[in-house]
Amino acid sequence: MTTFLGLGAMGTALAATLLDAGLPVVGWNRDPRRAQPLAGRGAVVADTVDKAVVGDGPVIVCLFDHRSVHDVLDPVAAALSGRTVINLTTTTPAESRELAAWAAGHRIAYLDGAILAVPDMIGGPGSMIFYSGTEAAFAEHRELLDRWGESTFFGADAGLSSVYDTAMLTGMYTMVAGFLHGAAMLAAEGVPAAEFARWQAPFLTAMTGGFARYAATIDAGDYAGGGQSLRFTEVALDTLLRATTGQGVSTELLQPVHDLVRRQIAAGHGDLDTARMFEELRTTR
Amino acid sequence: MTTFLGLGAMGTALAATLLDAGLPVVGWNRDPRRAQPLAGRGAVVADTVDKAVVGDGPVIVCLFDHRSVHDVLDPVAAALSGRTVINLTTTTPAESRELAAWAAGHRIAYLDGAILAVPDMIGGPGSMIFYSGTEAAFAEHRELLDRWGESTFFGADAGLSSVYDTAMLTGMYTMVAGFLHGAAMLAAEGVPAAEFARWQAPFLTAMTGGFARYAATIDAGDYAGGGQSLRFTEVALDTLLRATTGQGVSTELLQPVHDLVRRQIAAGHGDLDTARMFEELRTTR
Repeated sequence: MTTFLGLGAMGTALAATLLDAGLPVVGWNRDPRRAQPLAGRGAVVADTVDKAVVGDGPVIVCLFDHRSVHDVLDPVAAALSGRTVINLTTTTPAESRELAAWAAGHRIAYLDGAILAVPDMIGGPGSMIFYSGTEAAFAEHRELLDRWGESTFFGADAGLSSVYDTAMLTGMYTMVAGFLHGAAMLAAEGVPAAEFARWQAPFLTAMTGGFARYAATIDAGDYAGGGQSLRFTEVALDTLLRATTGQGVSTELLQPVHDLVRRQIAAGHGDLDTARMFEELRTTR
Repeated sequence: MTTFLGLGAMGTALAATLLDAGLPVVGWNRDPRRAQPLAGRGAVVADTVDKAVVGDGPVIVCLFDHRSVHDVLDPVAAALSGRTVINLTTTTPAESRELAAWAAGHRIAYLDGAILAVPDMIGGPGSMIFYSGTEAAFAEHRELLDRWGESTFFGADAGLSSVYDTAMLTGMYTMVAGFLHGAAMLAAEGVPAAEFARWQAPFLTAMTGGFARYAATIDAGDYAGGGQSLRFTEVALDTLLRATTGQGVSTELLQPVHDLVRRQIAAGHGDLDTARMFEELRTTR
Protein backbone atom coordinates (compact mmCIF):
# COMPACT_ATOMS: atom_id res chain seq x y z
CA MET A 1 0.00 0.00 0.00
CA THR A 2 1.44 3.33 -1.05
CA THR A 3 0.29 6.42 0.83
CA PHE A 4 -0.18 9.77 -0.91
CA LEU A 5 -0.37 12.94 1.14
CA GLY A 6 -1.50 15.73 -1.12
CA LEU A 7 -3.69 15.02 -4.14
CA GLY A 8 -3.38 18.14 -6.23
CA ALA A 9 -2.77 17.79 -9.95
CA MET A 10 0.67 16.22 -9.46
CA GLY A 11 -0.21 13.95 -6.54
CA THR A 12 -3.23 12.72 -8.46
CA ALA A 13 -1.15 11.97 -11.55
CA LEU A 14 1.42 10.04 -9.49
CA ALA A 15 -1.25 8.01 -7.68
CA ALA A 16 -3.20 7.34 -10.87
CA THR A 17 -0.09 5.79 -12.47
CA LEU A 18 0.06 3.25 -9.63
CA LEU A 19 -3.68 2.54 -9.78
CA ASP A 20 -3.39 1.95 -13.52
CA ALA A 21 -0.71 -0.66 -12.75
CA GLY A 22 -3.06 -2.38 -10.30
CA LEU A 23 -1.17 -1.24 -7.19
CA PRO A 24 -3.09 -0.29 -4.03
CA VAL A 25 -3.18 3.38 -3.05
CA VAL A 26 -4.45 5.24 -0.02
CA GLY A 27 -4.61 9.02 -0.27
CA TRP A 28 -5.45 12.10 1.73
CA ASN A 29 -5.99 15.66 0.63
CA ARG A 30 -6.82 18.71 2.75
CA ASP A 31 -9.76 19.47 0.47
CA PRO A 32 -11.40 16.02 0.11
CA ARG A 33 -13.30 17.04 -3.03
CA ARG A 34 -10.03 16.95 -4.97
CA ALA A 35 -9.59 13.30 -3.98
CA GLN A 36 -12.81 12.21 -5.63
CA PRO A 37 -11.39 11.46 -9.11
CA LEU A 38 -8.95 8.98 -7.52
CA ALA A 39 -11.65 7.37 -5.40
CA GLY A 40 -13.51 6.67 -8.60
CA ARG A 41 -10.43 4.88 -9.94
CA GLY A 42 -10.08 2.58 -6.94
CA ALA A 43 -7.99 4.49 -4.40
CA VAL A 44 -8.88 4.41 -0.72
CA VAL A 45 -9.47 8.01 0.31
CA ALA A 46 -8.74 8.75 3.97
CA ASP A 47 -10.35 11.71 5.68
CA THR A 48 -7.40 12.25 8.06
CA VAL A 49 -3.63 12.00 7.66
CA ASP A 50 -3.60 9.47 10.51
CA LYS A 51 -5.80 7.09 8.55
CA ALA A 52 -3.73 7.57 5.40
CA VAL A 53 -0.38 6.55 6.90
CA VAL A 54 -1.48 2.98 7.57
CA GLY A 55 0.66 -0.09 6.87
CA ASP A 56 4.40 0.06 6.18
CA GLY A 57 4.55 1.20 2.55
CA PRO A 58 6.26 4.32 1.32
CA VAL A 59 4.64 7.68 2.01
CA ILE A 60 4.61 10.00 -0.98
CA VAL A 61 4.32 13.67 -0.04
CA CYS A 62 3.23 16.13 -2.70
CA LEU A 63 2.07 19.29 -0.96
CA PHE A 64 2.09 23.05 -1.44
CA ASP A 65 5.37 24.08 0.16
CA HIS A 66 7.88 23.29 2.91
CA ARG A 67 5.62 24.59 5.67
CA SER A 68 2.69 22.44 4.62
CA VAL A 69 4.99 19.36 4.67
CA HIS A 70 5.73 19.99 8.35
CA ASP A 71 2.10 20.79 9.11
CA VAL A 72 1.06 17.41 7.69
CA LEU A 73 3.98 15.19 8.78
CA ASP A 74 4.83 16.49 12.25
CA PRO A 75 1.69 15.10 13.94
CA VAL A 76 2.27 11.61 12.46
CA ALA A 77 6.06 11.41 12.89
CA ALA A 78 5.80 8.47 15.30
CA ALA A 79 3.74 6.45 12.82
CA LEU A 80 6.36 7.10 10.12
CA SER A 81 9.31 5.85 12.18
CA GLY A 82 11.13 3.00 10.42
CA ARG A 83 9.39 3.78 7.13
CA THR A 84 10.26 5.80 4.02
CA VAL A 85 9.01 9.29 3.22
CA ILE A 86 9.46 10.39 -0.39
CA ASN A 87 8.90 14.12 -0.50
CA LEU A 88 8.11 15.44 -3.96
CA THR A 89 6.98 18.87 -2.79
CA THR A 90 9.04 21.66 -4.39
CA THR A 91 11.31 23.10 -1.72
CA THR A 92 14.59 24.99 -1.62
CA PRO A 93 17.82 23.00 -1.06
CA ALA A 94 18.00 24.36 2.50
CA GLU A 95 14.43 23.26 3.20
CA SER A 96 15.11 19.78 1.79
CA ARG A 97 18.13 19.45 4.07
CA GLU A 98 16.07 20.60 7.05
CA LEU A 99 13.40 17.98 6.29
CA ALA A 100 16.09 15.29 5.94
CA ALA A 101 17.45 16.20 9.38
CA TRP A 102 13.94 16.18 10.82
CA ALA A 103 13.34 12.73 9.30
CA ALA A 104 16.64 11.38 10.63
CA GLY A 105 15.65 12.58 14.10
CA HIS A 106 12.51 10.41 13.84
CA ARG A 107 14.32 7.41 12.29
CA ILE A 108 12.48 7.97 9.01
CA ALA A 109 14.25 7.12 5.75
CA TYR A 110 13.97 10.26 3.63
CA LEU A 111 14.16 10.76 -0.11
CA ASP A 112 13.80 14.24 -1.53
CA GLY A 113 12.48 14.14 -5.07
CA ALA A 114 12.17 16.80 -7.72
CA ILE A 115 9.79 16.22 -10.60
CA LEU A 116 10.95 17.68 -13.90
CA ALA A 117 7.64 17.25 -15.66
CA VAL A 118 4.09 18.53 -15.66
CA PRO A 119 1.32 16.22 -14.36
CA ASP A 120 0.27 15.19 -17.87
CA MET A 121 3.75 13.81 -18.51
CA ILE A 122 3.89 11.51 -15.47
CA GLY A 123 4.37 7.90 -16.53
CA GLY A 124 5.11 8.91 -20.10
CA PRO A 125 8.16 9.79 -22.18
CA GLY A 126 10.22 12.82 -21.09
CA SER A 127 9.24 12.62 -17.42
CA MET A 128 12.35 12.92 -15.24
CA ILE A 129 12.50 12.74 -11.44
CA PHE A 130 15.64 13.52 -9.44
CA TYR A 131 16.22 12.04 -5.98
CA SER A 132 18.72 12.52 -3.20
CA GLY A 133 18.83 11.45 0.45
CA THR A 134 18.72 7.89 1.82
CA GLU A 135 20.28 5.73 -0.89
CA ALA A 136 18.89 2.47 0.49
CA ALA A 137 15.36 3.87 0.23
CA PHE A 138 15.98 4.80 -3.40
CA ALA A 139 17.18 1.26 -4.15
CA GLU A 140 14.26 -0.33 -2.27
CA HIS A 141 11.57 1.69 -4.07
CA ARG A 142 13.26 2.07 -7.44
CA GLU A 143 10.73 -0.08 -9.26
CA LEU A 144 7.88 2.08 -7.95
CA LEU A 145 9.68 5.34 -8.74
CA ASP A 146 10.48 4.25 -12.29
CA ARG A 147 6.76 4.00 -13.03
CA TRP A 148 6.54 7.82 -12.92
CA GLY A 149 9.49 8.62 -15.14
CA GLU A 150 13.24 8.30 -15.47
CA SER A 151 14.62 8.21 -11.90
CA THR A 152 18.09 9.51 -11.09
CA PHE A 153 19.80 9.44 -7.69
CA PHE A 154 22.19 12.33 -7.04
CA GLY A 155 23.62 11.37 -3.65
CA ALA A 156 23.15 11.35 0.10
CA ASP A 157 22.86 15.17 0.39
CA ALA A 158 19.07 15.50 0.42
CA GLY A 159 19.36 19.07 -0.88
CA LEU A 160 21.10 18.17 -4.13
CA SER A 161 18.03 17.10 -6.10
CA SER A 162 16.48 20.42 -5.11
CA VAL A 163 19.50 22.35 -6.37
CA TYR A 164 19.12 20.64 -9.77
CA ASP A 165 15.36 21.09 -9.65
CA THR A 166 15.37 24.78 -8.79
CA ALA A 167 18.18 25.50 -11.26
CA MET A 168 16.30 23.74 -14.05
CA LEU A 169 12.91 25.24 -13.18
CA THR A 170 14.43 28.72 -13.18
CA GLY A 171 15.40 28.07 -16.79
CA MET A 172 11.92 26.79 -17.55
CA TYR A 173 10.10 29.79 -16.10
CA THR A 174 12.38 32.29 -17.81
CA MET A 175 11.92 30.38 -21.08
CA VAL A 176 8.12 30.37 -20.74
CA ALA A 177 8.09 34.07 -19.82
CA GLY A 178 10.21 34.77 -22.90
CA PHE A 179 7.76 32.77 -25.04
CA LEU A 180 4.84 34.84 -23.75
CA HIS A 181 6.83 38.05 -24.40
CA GLY A 182 7.45 36.96 -28.01
CA ALA A 183 3.82 35.93 -28.49
CA ALA A 184 2.78 39.42 -27.34
CA MET A 185 5.13 40.99 -29.92
CA LEU A 186 3.57 38.99 -32.75
CA ALA A 187 0.04 39.59 -31.48
CA ALA A 188 0.54 43.24 -32.42
CA GLU A 189 0.67 42.05 -36.06
CA GLY A 190 -2.39 39.87 -35.63
CA VAL A 191 -0.33 36.65 -35.63
CA PRO A 192 -1.94 33.99 -33.37
CA ALA A 193 0.15 32.61 -30.50
CA ALA A 194 -0.30 29.11 -31.96
CA GLU A 195 1.51 30.25 -35.12
CA PHE A 196 4.36 31.64 -33.02
CA ALA A 197 4.56 28.44 -30.93
CA ARG A 198 4.93 26.42 -34.14
CA TRP A 199 8.15 28.33 -34.94
CA GLN A 200 9.49 29.00 -31.46
CA ALA A 201 9.39 25.45 -30.04
CA PRO A 202 11.75 23.91 -32.66
CA PHE A 203 13.93 27.05 -32.67
CA LEU A 204 14.53 27.00 -28.92
CA THR A 205 15.05 23.24 -29.10
CA ALA A 206 17.79 23.81 -31.68
CA MET A 207 19.27 26.58 -29.52
CA THR A 208 19.58 24.30 -26.48
CA GLY A 209 22.30 22.68 -28.60
CA GLY A 210 24.42 25.72 -27.69
CA PHE A 211 24.36 25.00 -23.94
CA ALA A 212 27.27 22.58 -24.21
CA ARG A 213 29.45 25.28 -25.78
CA TYR A 214 28.54 27.84 -23.12
CA ALA A 215 29.26 25.20 -20.47
CA ALA A 216 32.67 24.38 -21.94
CA THR A 217 33.59 28.08 -21.83
CA ILE A 218 32.38 28.37 -18.22
CA ASP A 219 34.14 25.20 -17.06
CA ALA A 220 37.38 26.32 -18.73
CA GLY A 221 37.00 29.68 -16.96
CA ASP A 222 38.29 31.38 -20.10
CA TYR A 223 35.93 33.94 -21.61
CA ALA A 224 38.46 35.39 -24.05
CA GLY A 225 37.74 32.78 -26.74
CA GLY A 226 35.82 33.16 -29.96
CA GLY A 227 32.17 33.07 -28.85
CA GLN A 228 29.65 35.90 -29.18
CA SER A 229 31.02 38.88 -27.26
CA LEU A 230 29.11 40.80 -24.61
CA ARG A 231 29.44 43.87 -26.85
CA PHE A 232 27.72 42.05 -29.74
CA THR A 233 25.03 40.76 -27.39
CA GLU A 234 24.46 44.30 -26.07
CA VAL A 235 23.72 45.54 -29.61
CA ALA A 236 21.38 42.59 -30.24
CA LEU A 237 19.53 43.14 -26.96
CA ASP A 238 19.23 46.87 -27.67
CA THR A 239 17.58 45.99 -31.00
CA LEU A 240 15.25 43.52 -29.28
CA LEU A 241 14.28 46.10 -26.66
CA ARG A 242 13.46 48.71 -29.32
CA ALA A 243 11.52 46.11 -31.31
CA THR A 244 9.64 45.13 -28.13
CA THR A 245 8.67 48.73 -27.42
CA GLY A 246 7.70 49.19 -31.07
CA GLN A 247 5.29 46.26 -30.78
CA GLY A 248 3.69 47.78 -27.68
CA VAL A 249 5.11 45.15 -25.33
CA SER A 250 6.64 45.68 -21.90
CA THR A 251 10.44 45.44 -21.72
CA GLU A 252 10.39 44.47 -18.05
CA LEU A 253 11.54 40.85 -18.61
CA LEU A 254 14.26 41.63 -21.16
CA GLN A 255 15.66 44.86 -19.69
CA PRO A 256 17.36 43.04 -16.77
CA VAL A 257 19.34 40.88 -19.23
CA HIS A 258 20.44 44.05 -21.02
CA ASP A 259 21.38 45.67 -17.71
CA LEU A 260 23.45 42.64 -16.75
CA VAL A 261 25.33 42.78 -20.06
CA ARG A 262 25.89 46.54 -19.94
CA ARG A 263 27.24 46.32 -16.39
CA GLN A 264 29.92 43.90 -17.58
CA ILE A 265 30.82 46.08 -20.56
CA ALA A 266 31.13 49.07 -18.23
CA ALA A 267 33.51 46.98 -16.12
CA GLY A 268 35.72 46.43 -19.18
CA HIS A 269 34.54 42.95 -20.20
CA GLY A 270 32.91 43.89 -23.54
CA ASP A 271 35.19 41.69 -25.63
CA LEU A 272 34.59 38.61 -23.51
CA ASP A 273 32.21 35.76 -24.32
CA THR A 274 28.56 36.31 -23.40
CA ALA A 275 28.79 33.21 -21.19
CA ARG A 276 30.59 35.50 -18.71
CA MET A 277 27.08 36.41 -17.48
CA PHE A 278 27.53 33.24 -15.40
CA GLU A 279 30.29 34.96 -13.37
CA GLU A 280 28.32 38.17 -13.01
CA LEU A 281 25.34 36.27 -11.61
CA ARG A 282 27.44 34.69 -8.87
CA THR A 283 27.16 37.37 -6.27
CA THR A 284 28.90 35.55 -3.44
CA ARG A 285 32.11 33.96 -4.69
CA MET B 1 28.49 36.73 -58.81
CA THR B 2 27.00 37.26 -55.35
CA THR B 3 28.14 40.31 -53.39
CA PHE B 4 28.59 40.22 -49.61
CA LEU B 5 28.77 43.46 -47.66
CA GLY B 6 29.90 42.64 -44.13
CA LEU B 7 32.09 39.61 -43.46
CA GLY B 8 31.76 39.12 -39.73
CA ALA B 9 31.18 35.61 -38.42
CA MET B 10 27.73 35.35 -40.04
CA GLY B 11 28.62 36.99 -43.38
CA THR B 12 31.64 34.73 -43.63
CA ALA B 13 29.55 31.62 -42.94
CA LEU B 14 27.00 32.61 -45.60
CA ALA B 15 29.67 33.36 -48.22
CA ALA B 16 31.62 30.19 -47.41
CA THR B 17 28.52 28.09 -48.11
CA LEU B 18 28.38 29.52 -51.64
CA LEU B 19 32.13 29.08 -52.21
CA ASP B 20 31.84 25.45 -51.08
CA ALA B 21 29.16 25.00 -53.77
CA GLY B 22 31.51 26.44 -56.41
CA LEU B 23 29.63 29.74 -56.75
CA PRO B 24 31.55 33.00 -57.29
CA VAL B 25 31.61 35.49 -54.40
CA VAL B 26 32.88 39.03 -54.07
CA GLY B 27 33.00 40.47 -50.54
CA TRP B 28 33.83 43.62 -48.66
CA ASN B 29 34.40 44.21 -44.98
CA ARG B 30 35.20 47.45 -43.18
CA ASP B 31 38.16 45.76 -41.48
CA PRO B 32 39.81 43.92 -44.42
CA ARG B 33 41.70 41.54 -42.11
CA ARG B 34 38.43 39.74 -41.34
CA ALA B 35 37.99 39.03 -45.08
CA GLN B 36 41.24 37.07 -45.32
CA PRO B 37 39.80 33.62 -44.47
CA LEU B 38 37.37 33.93 -47.40
CA ALA B 39 40.07 35.15 -49.78
CA GLY B 40 41.95 31.95 -49.02
CA ARG B 41 38.87 29.98 -50.03
CA GLY B 42 38.52 31.66 -53.42
CA ALA B 43 36.42 34.77 -52.81
CA VAL B 44 37.30 38.05 -54.50
CA VAL B 45 37.88 40.56 -51.72
CA ALA B 46 37.13 44.17 -52.68
CA ASP B 47 38.75 47.01 -50.76
CA THR B 48 35.81 49.37 -51.32
CA VAL B 49 32.03 48.91 -51.36
CA ASP B 50 32.01 50.36 -54.90
CA LYS B 51 34.22 47.57 -56.18
CA ALA B 52 32.15 44.93 -54.36
CA VAL B 53 28.80 45.84 -55.95
CA VAL B 54 29.92 44.88 -59.45
CA GLY B 55 27.79 42.90 -61.90
CA ASP B 56 24.06 42.32 -61.48
CA GLY B 57 23.91 39.56 -58.86
CA PRO B 58 22.17 39.82 -55.50
CA VAL B 59 23.78 41.92 -52.78
CA ILE B 60 23.80 40.25 -49.37
CA VAL B 61 24.09 42.70 -46.50
CA CYS B 62 25.18 41.39 -43.11
CA LEU B 63 26.32 44.35 -41.03
CA PHE B 64 26.30 45.58 -37.44
CA ASP B 65 23.03 47.46 -37.22
CA HIS B 66 20.51 49.58 -39.14
CA ARG B 67 22.73 52.65 -39.19
CA SER B 68 25.67 50.75 -40.65
CA VAL B 69 23.40 49.43 -43.44
CA HIS B 70 22.63 53.01 -44.50
CA ASP B 71 26.27 54.06 -44.11
CA VAL B 72 27.32 51.30 -46.52
CA LEU B 73 24.41 51.30 -49.00
CA ASP B 74 23.56 54.99 -49.36
CA PRO B 75 26.69 55.88 -51.36
CA VAL B 76 26.13 53.02 -53.84
CA ALA B 77 22.36 53.32 -54.21
CA ALA B 78 22.62 54.21 -57.92
CA ALA B 79 24.68 51.08 -58.64
CA LEU B 80 22.06 48.93 -56.88
CA SER B 81 19.11 50.24 -58.92
CA GLY B 82 17.31 47.41 -60.71
CA ARG B 83 19.04 44.80 -58.56
CA THR B 84 18.17 42.88 -55.37
CA VAL B 85 19.40 43.71 -51.87
CA ILE B 86 18.95 40.94 -49.31
CA ASN B 87 19.51 42.49 -45.90
CA LEU B 88 20.29 39.95 -43.18
CA THR B 89 21.40 42.51 -40.61
CA THR B 90 19.35 42.28 -37.41
CA THR B 91 17.06 45.32 -37.30
CA THR B 92 13.79 46.25 -35.64
CA PRO B 93 10.57 45.86 -37.67
CA ALA B 94 10.38 49.66 -38.03
CA GLU B 95 13.96 49.81 -39.31
CA SER B 96 13.28 47.02 -41.81
CA ARG B 97 10.26 48.92 -43.13
CA GLU B 98 12.32 52.11 -43.40
CA LEU B 99 14.98 50.26 -45.42
CA ALA B 100 12.30 48.76 -47.69
CA ALA B 101 10.93 52.25 -48.38
CA TRP B 102 14.45 53.55 -49.03
CA ALA B 103 15.06 50.66 -51.47
CA ALA B 104 11.75 51.26 -53.26
CA GLY B 105 12.76 54.89 -53.71
CA HIS B 106 15.90 53.73 -55.54
CA ARG B 107 14.09 51.01 -57.56
CA ILE B 108 15.93 48.31 -55.62
CA ALA B 109 14.16 45.00 -54.95
CA TYR B 110 14.43 44.49 -51.20
CA LEU B 111 14.26 41.34 -49.10
CA ASP B 112 14.61 41.60 -45.36
CA GLY B 113 15.92 38.38 -43.88
CA ALA B 114 16.23 37.16 -40.32
CA ILE B 115 18.61 34.32 -39.56
CA LEU B 116 17.45 31.99 -36.80
CA ALA B 117 20.78 30.23 -36.41
CA VAL B 118 24.31 30.80 -35.24
CA PRO B 119 27.08 30.95 -37.88
CA ASP B 120 28.15 27.33 -37.28
CA MET B 121 24.66 26.17 -38.25
CA ILE B 122 24.52 27.90 -41.64
CA GLY B 123 24.05 25.37 -44.45
CA GLY B 124 23.32 22.59 -41.96
CA PRO B 125 20.25 21.11 -40.26
CA GLY B 126 18.18 23.40 -38.03
CA SER B 127 19.17 26.61 -39.81
CA MET B 128 16.06 28.70 -40.52
CA ILE B 129 15.91 32.04 -42.34
CA PHE B 130 12.77 34.16 -42.52
CA TYR B 131 12.19 36.62 -45.38
CA SER B 132 9.70 39.33 -46.17
CA GLY B 133 9.58 42.15 -48.74
CA THR B 134 9.71 41.81 -52.55
CA GLU B 135 8.15 38.41 -53.29
CA ALA B 136 9.53 38.24 -56.84
CA ALA B 137 13.07 38.62 -55.45
CA PHE B 138 12.46 35.77 -53.02
CA ALA B 139 11.27 33.54 -55.87
CA GLU B 140 14.19 34.53 -58.12
CA HIS B 141 16.88 33.82 -55.51
CA ARG B 142 15.19 30.95 -53.69
CA GLU B 143 17.73 28.37 -54.83
CA LEU B 144 20.58 30.50 -53.45
CA LEU B 145 18.76 31.22 -50.17
CA ASP B 146 17.98 27.55 -49.60
CA ARG B 147 21.69 26.78 -49.49
CA TRP B 148 21.89 28.53 -46.10
CA GLY B 149 18.94 26.91 -44.41
CA GLU B 150 15.18 26.46 -44.57
CA SER B 151 13.82 29.63 -46.20
CA THR B 152 10.33 30.93 -45.42
CA PHE B 153 8.63 33.96 -46.97
CA PHE B 154 6.24 35.80 -44.66
CA GLY B 155 4.80 38.42 -47.02
CA ALA B 156 5.27 41.79 -48.67
CA ASP B 157 5.54 43.71 -45.39
CA ALA B 158 9.34 43.88 -45.09
CA GLY B 159 9.03 44.29 -41.31
CA LEU B 160 7.31 40.98 -40.69
CA SER B 161 10.37 38.74 -40.78
CA SER B 162 11.92 41.09 -38.22
CA VAL B 163 8.89 40.79 -35.93
CA TYR B 164 9.27 37.00 -35.98
CA ASP B 165 13.03 37.29 -35.60
CA THR B 166 13.02 39.69 -32.67
CA ALA B 167 10.20 37.78 -30.93
CA MET B 168 12.10 34.49 -31.30
CA LEU B 169 15.47 35.94 -30.32
CA THR B 170 13.94 37.47 -27.20
CA GLY B 171 12.98 33.95 -26.20
CA MET B 172 16.47 32.69 -27.01
CA TYR B 173 18.28 35.32 -24.95
CA THR B 174 15.99 34.88 -21.95
CA MET B 175 16.45 31.10 -22.23
CA VAL B 176 20.26 31.40 -22.40
CA ALA B 177 20.28 33.86 -19.48
CA GLY B 178 18.16 31.39 -17.49
CA PHE B 179 20.61 28.60 -18.35
CA LEU B 180 23.54 30.66 -17.06
CA HIS B 181 21.56 31.49 -13.90
CA GLY B 182 20.93 27.78 -13.29
CA ALA B 183 24.56 26.89 -14.00
CA ALA B 184 25.60 29.45 -11.37
CA MET B 185 23.25 27.82 -8.82
CA LEU B 186 24.82 24.41 -9.37
CA ALA B 187 28.35 25.81 -9.40
CA ALA B 188 27.84 26.57 -5.70
CA GLU B 189 27.72 22.78 -5.17
CA GLY B 190 30.78 22.19 -7.32
CA VAL B 191 28.72 20.80 -10.22
CA PRO B 192 30.33 21.65 -13.60
CA ALA B 193 28.24 23.61 -16.10
CA ALA B 194 28.69 20.76 -18.60
CA GLU B 195 26.89 18.42 -16.19
CA PHE B 196 24.03 20.94 -15.87
CA ALA B 197 23.85 21.40 -19.66
CA ARG B 198 23.46 17.65 -20.08
CA TRP B 199 20.25 17.76 -18.00
CA GLN B 200 18.89 21.18 -18.92
CA ALA B 201 19.01 20.90 -22.73
CA PRO B 202 16.65 17.88 -22.96
CA PHE B 203 14.46 19.23 -20.15
CA LEU B 204 13.85 22.57 -21.83
CA THR B 205 13.34 20.76 -25.14
CA ALA B 206 10.60 18.70 -23.48
CA MET B 207 9.12 21.86 -21.94
CA THR B 208 8.81 23.59 -25.33
CA GLY B 209 6.09 20.97 -25.83
CA GLY B 210 3.96 23.11 -23.52
CA PHE B 211 4.04 26.17 -25.81
CA ALA B 212 1.12 24.88 -27.86
CA ARG B 213 -1.06 24.63 -24.77
CA TYR B 214 -0.15 28.16 -23.63
CA ALA B 215 -0.87 29.38 -27.16
CA ALA B 216 -4.28 27.69 -27.25
CA THR B 217 -5.19 29.42 -23.98
CA ILE B 218 -4.00 32.79 -25.31
CA ASP B 219 -5.75 32.44 -28.67
CA ALA B 220 -8.98 31.42 -26.93
CA GLY B 221 -8.60 34.49 -24.69
CA ASP B 222 -9.90 32.42 -21.78
CA TYR B 223 -7.54 32.18 -18.82
CA ALA B 224 -10.09 30.62 -16.45
CA GLY B 225 -9.35 27.05 -17.63
CA GLY B 226 -7.45 24.33 -15.86
CA GLY B 227 -3.81 25.29 -16.40
CA GLN B 228 -1.27 26.24 -13.71
CA SER B 229 -2.64 29.27 -11.90
CA LEU B 230 -0.75 32.50 -11.32
CA ARG B 231 -1.07 31.84 -7.57
CA PHE B 232 0.65 28.44 -7.94
CA THR B 233 3.33 29.99 -10.14
CA GLU B 234 3.90 32.72 -7.54
CA VAL B 235 4.65 30.10 -4.89
CA ALA B 236 6.99 28.24 -7.25
CA LEU B 237 8.84 31.43 -8.20
CA ASP B 238 9.13 32.42 -4.54
CA THR B 239 10.79 29.05 -3.86
CA LEU B 240 13.12 29.51 -6.84
CA LEU B 241 14.08 32.99 -5.67
CA ARG B 242 14.89 31.75 -2.16
CA ALA B 243 16.86 28.82 -3.62
CA THR B 244 18.73 31.25 -5.89
CA THR B 245 19.70 33.48 -2.96
CA GLY B 246 20.66 30.41 -0.94
CA GLN B 247 23.09 29.38 -3.70
CA GLY B 248 24.69 32.84 -3.71
CA VAL B 249 23.27 33.78 -7.10
CA SER B 250 21.72 37.09 -8.14
CA THR B 251 17.93 37.15 -8.44
CA GLU B 252 17.97 40.02 -10.92
CA LEU B 253 16.83 37.93 -13.91
CA LEU B 254 14.11 35.97 -12.10
CA GLN B 255 12.70 38.71 -9.85
CA PRO B 256 11.00 40.54 -12.76
CA VAL B 257 9.03 37.37 -13.61
CA HIS B 258 7.92 37.15 -9.99
CA ASP B 259 6.98 40.86 -9.98
CA LEU B 260 4.91 40.37 -13.13
CA VAL B 261 3.04 37.46 -11.55
CA ARG B 262 2.48 39.23 -8.23
CA ARG B 263 1.10 42.32 -9.98
CA GLN B 264 -1.56 40.18 -11.64
CA ILE B 265 -2.45 38.45 -8.37
CA ALA B 266 -2.78 41.87 -6.70
CA ALA B 267 -5.16 42.83 -9.52
CA GLY B 268 -7.36 39.85 -8.66
CA HIS B 269 -6.17 37.40 -11.34
CA GLY B 270 -4.54 34.81 -9.04
CA ASP B 271 -6.83 31.98 -10.09
CA LEU B 272 -6.23 32.53 -13.80
CA ASP B 273 -3.83 30.54 -15.98
CA THR B 274 -0.19 31.62 -15.88
CA ALA B 275 -0.41 32.24 -19.64
CA ARG B 276 -2.22 35.47 -18.67
CA MET B 277 1.30 36.99 -18.40
CA PHE B 278 0.85 37.46 -22.16
CA GLU B 279 -1.92 40.03 -21.52
CA GLU B 280 0.04 41.78 -18.78
CA LEU B 281 3.03 42.22 -21.11
CA ARG B 282 0.92 43.95 -23.75
CA THR B 283 1.20 47.49 -22.51
CA THR B 284 -0.53 49.26 -25.39
CA ARG B 285 -3.77 47.51 -26.28
